[in-house]
Amino acid sequence: MLRIDGDRLLARLSRLREFGAAGTGVVRPTYSIDDMASRNWLVEEMQNAGLDAAIDGIGNVLGRSRTSSPAFLIGSHTDTQPTGGWLDGAMGVIYGVEIAHALHDHGMSDIAVDVASWADEEGTYGSFAGSRSFFGELTDDDLQARNTKGETLVEALARVGLAGVPRMAFDPQRHQVYLEAHIEQGPHLEDTHKQLGIVSSIVGLRALQITFTGEQNHAGTTPMARRKDAGMAMFDFAVRVNSRLQALAGPTTVWTIGNCELLPGGESIIPGRAWCGLQFRDADEAVLDRFEHAIAELAVEMTATGPVAVEVESRRDAVLPAHMDESLRRHLSEAAEHTVPGGWVSMPSAAAHDAQIAARHLPTAMLFIPSLGGISHDFAEDSRFEDIVLGCQVLADAVVRIAAS
Amino acid sequence: MLRIDGDRLLARLSRLREFGAAGTGVVRPTYSIDDMASRNWLVEEMQNAGLDAAIDGIGNVLGRSRTSSPAFLIGSHTDTQPTGGWLDGAMGVIYGVEIAHALHDHGMSDIAVDVASWADEEGTYGSFAGSRSFFGELTDDDLQARNTKGETLVEALARVGLAGVPRMAFDPQRHQVYLEAHIEQGPHLEDTHKQLGIVSSIVGLRALQITFTGEQNHAGTTPMARRKDAGMAMFDFAVRVNSRLQALAGPTTVWTIGNCELLPGGESIIPGRAWCGLQFRDADEAVLDRFEHAIAELAVEMTATGPVAVEVESRRDAVLPAHMDESLRRHLSEAAEHTVPGGWVSMPSAAAHDAQIAARHLPTAMLFIPSLGGISHDFAEDSRFEDIVLGCQVLADAVVRIAAS
Repeated sequence: MLRIDGDRLLARLSRLREFGAAGTGVVRPTYSIDDMASRNWLVEEMQNAGLDAAIDGIGNVLGRSRTSSPAFLIGSHTDTQPTGGWLDGAMGVIYGVEIAHALHDHGMSDIAVDVASWADEEGTYGSFAGSRSFFGELTDDDLQARNTKGETLVEALARVGLAGVPRMAFDPQRHQVYLEAHIEQGPHLEDTHKQLGIVSSIVGLRALQITFTGEQNHAGTTPMARRKDAGMAMFDFAVRVNSRLQALAGPTTVWTIGNCELLPGGESIIPGRAWCGLQFRDADEAVLDRFEHAIAELAVEMTATGPVAVEVESRRDAVLPAHMDESLRRHLSEAAEHTVPGGWVSMPSAAAHDAQIAARHLPTAMLFIPSLGGISHDFAEDSRFEDIVLGCQVLADAVVRIAAS
Repeated sequence: MLRIDGDRLLARLSRLREFGAAGTGVVRPTYSIDDMASRNWLVEEMQNAGLDAAIDGIGNVLGRSRTSSPAFLIGSHTDTQPTGGWLDGAMGVIYGVEIAHALHDHGMSDIAVDVASWADEEGTYGSFAGSRSFFGELTDDDLQARNTKGETLVEALARVGLAGVPRMAFDPQRHQVYLEAHIEQGPHLEDTHKQLGIVSSIVGLRALQITFTGEQNHAGTTPMARRKDAGMAMFDFAVRVNSRLQALAGPTTVWTIGNCELLPGGESIIPGRAWCGLQFRDADEAVLDRFEHAIAELAVEMTATGPVAVEVESRRDAVLPAHMDESLRRHLSEAAEHTVPGGWVSMPSAAAHDAQIAARHLPTAMLFIPSLGGISHDFAEDSRFEDIVLGCQVLADAVVRIAAS
């Protein structure tokens, strides 16, 4: 057993919350002044926990155990959404610091834990810049990605004084296991009255653009029977696709039409064109394949019957599901069962995490704690202190179990 | 019989088409340089036709017969949509000029015909500014209406030199009948192989705004069963309302959802709010009442079953149906039957016209000729020369019949 210090854990989280504090929430997007201040503070805290620490050339904060390899890598992110919550990724980073600190306190120098706070998990400049840099996946194109104000990633790095600073990289000899803890960001644990979730996989995601081409015309003088109304076709498609996907969905599949448009958009003009976005997520590629097939099939059917042509195209590259390591999941489950018998559940993650990048390179696992009301990415995001401390203790126990295995 | 000069009619229409010509179309919005040039030309043509003519303080061109009252008032509009056709309202104005000219040629000084080209029928600055000014319906608020560039109507009038110029007004002693000819702007005459339409009424119009209030949430972590998706509610509403309205519609009722929005509109965010516009038109107020009732009923039903609240409100004042005068319609029908036996039809106008303003103040009737392909408000708008001349001859015949009655 490795006893963590719950008070120290909560004190660090409480201090970190002050950087960019906005009421109950936090405004700390990557490379903002508050974000960089929090990274400098985090370097000191890692040093207090007995780690060698530094900020690398992409903004990752990396704390390295003085114990020689092999090492655990425990990470998450301390950047936030434009209007974010205080726990989100911050909790998982501070879990890593606390576990390293507890190992240091107890002189358990046989277990090496490195800790990472990955830059820009929230995608201010693209997607997963920090973890993708560490795992060698960041391209030159990625460095030219822009934030909503038009600043490129490479310009942002120069602005915060990181131009020319080396980027630290994954060492397959040293890093044998990646662990990440996170708030659930959904209501599943709360709904099922569980205190912990052991992540089975991080869901894959596909995003399609559906376009409808009819004929623009006068909304007064064009009889109903002569219309080729792209808008009505879109409404019809949305309702029909929803019922077909319902029949094909697995227990945790989700799908969403988040945006749409009628063109030209005049009150007195029959829409000649329309489009909507349709995104769907599942841990099982077979479900995603079924969905994509059903959507394409409906488009073909509607085009054939007319009067509006329906086309489907991908909005961007599909995100593949990332499966968590079986052996690590078993150790996490055993640690959870030991501390809260029956109080944990195996579940997919419906949100994206740095762990899905890590999982492509080394055995990876994730632990969730409940989000109050399932709320995240919002000032109202919160979790019970008891659950926060419990999650860190179970992760520490799992580290000891994995090290002994 | 009053024989009109078809060649002169077509020559004037052809000359008018040159003001703001753009390919086969015309760009001549109210108070543009081309519009004002065409009004000055129109004053001269009215004088050539034996009328006293002037531009009044709202931009109306009014030609007055030297014959003492009572008089016919024949009008329409010479302004166009931003990308308009060459006939639209221009044809009806030149019909009036030709009929006055023919009366003058033939020394038929017992029939007085005044001619009007109403300003801003196309609503560049509001709605029907010219005819509403003439009939005493224009308010101070209307004078502050802005075009899409932010210029007010009163500023536009000053810009074109009409500030301080008196506005001419309807004289109930003199004006006993209002007649307006227009292209149909729809496919009904062409579909039914008729050359003339005698308008029974101009349809009423109501425009509603439907709003949907659900709960914004994460598109990954929110299970389908827990969602309050305002977008899906909107799609569902649109399909259900469409099928209910189909069952309640008369033979010529039309309804259109021309614009909608999902909010906040992110691909990965379940829409918390949504809205759409729903416009419907019919000559029969009872149909419009049925529609409005059915729409409100569906909103109440959907709100009651949940999970999304649906609210209905009016977008603006309802436009009441305008019924054409029975006696004038009979005279027009007899003139039409005399010239093209079986080649005419009684029909509602699904588009708005200055005649609906006039109809509130004096007996009013309208005559339609076919639009090729039902197209209008487009550079491709056109009609057969034969139909253009026929329409004017039948309108002239009707004037003589009405005068004799």
